Amino acid sequence: MHVVWYTAMSMDGRIADTKQSLDFLETIGPSDDTRGDFQAFLATIDAVVVGATTLRWLLRRGHGWPHDDLPTWLIAHDPGLVSDVGSTRAPFRRMEGSVGAVFQEIAAGGHERVWLCGGGAVAGQALESDRIDEVVVTVAPTALGAGPALFDADNIRDRRFRLVECRSLGGDAARLRWLRDRRT
Amino acid sequence: MHVVWYTAMSMDGRIADTKQSLDFLETIGPSDDTRGDFQAFLATIDAVVVGATTLRWLLRRGHGWPHDDLPTWLIAHDPGLVSDVGSTRAPFRRMEGSVGAVFQEIAAGGHERVWLCGGGAVAGQALESDRIDEVVVTVAPTALGAGPALFDADNIRDRRFRLVECRSLGGDAARLRWLRDRRT
Repeated sequence: MHVVWYTAMSMDGRIADTKQSLDFLETIGPSDDTRGDFQAFLATIDAVVVGATTLRWLLRRGHGWPHDDLPTWLIAHDPGLVSDVGSTRAPFRRMEGSVGAVFQEIAAGGHERVWLCGGGAVAGQALESDRIDEVVVTVAPTALGAGPALFDADNIRDRRFRLVECRSLGGDAARLRWLRDRRT
Repeated sequence: MHVVWYTAMSMDGRIADTKQSLDFLETIGPSDDTRGDFQAFLATIDAVVVGATTLRWLLRRGHGWPHDDLPTWLIAHDPGLVSDVGSTRAPFRRMEGSVGAVFQEIAAGGHERVWLCGGGAVAGQALESDRIDEVVVTVAPTALGAGPALFDADNIRDRRFRLVECRSLGGDAARLRWLRDRRT
């Protein structure tokens, strides 16, 4: 099983501002390249993991759960979030507790490519458990100064990656793609 | 006057770990490209601004102040740091209070290219005052999960940049270079 943390961050490593707003994403610009890239990525995915904060942000914006065609694991203490999402085309499950147990269940289900959809705390826990295989990050041309980061965790050690992609996305955004280097 | 924040950060935007250690820099690798780039950059600089935390880290490592050939402004409450640095070839001044006042003094002295040497809090204050003209950041292939960020500030608004460089540095590090976009 291969887990990809595909997301966007500010130039100073934040994936949202202190009010959990993702408005900074607008500075990436509506590049066809970016949109096409995300659709192509989604087509390779067969399961999604999302945290409570990210899901709440989507629900507040009236998006519902936009990836309800993909089997989804929500990591959240609040059972009410599942009813807020409503009916979905693919199974939508809520789990509490360790991110490691969530990935074990997903692997046991035979899923092969998992999108870690957010946010930084879930990504941090996943990295602590060494379950992140790939990071695909669009770097926005704006600084936030505060807010949750690409990884938020207190005990990450020896988590090295190899750089496999580094390019301008047109506009002023950059794309960095990293693969976990398990020799370290 | 043109102010450049030239530094390195982890892939999750941290410029040091929670113990203020810069050991993650070793994951950038001893690329001749990186070293030559830094020397070429230094040759363009005629003044340096450094914060207390960054200077203390250099002193603890026994480095002294490695850029004592350049007029330097230290932003620190502790006067003892100046005597810890000892004699320098170019003037070494300590100032307290606002970063804005420091930049005014440097500009009044006729300096034209200033290196903001560190750290994240000083850079955050400088960005709040809109005194950052350029950011040159080497992104290391490692995640830290916590620690001071490229910019740490609570009130950064509308600070957009243009991406002018995005390339692999060889090894697994990436170079991003941004110019402040003052239309925003």
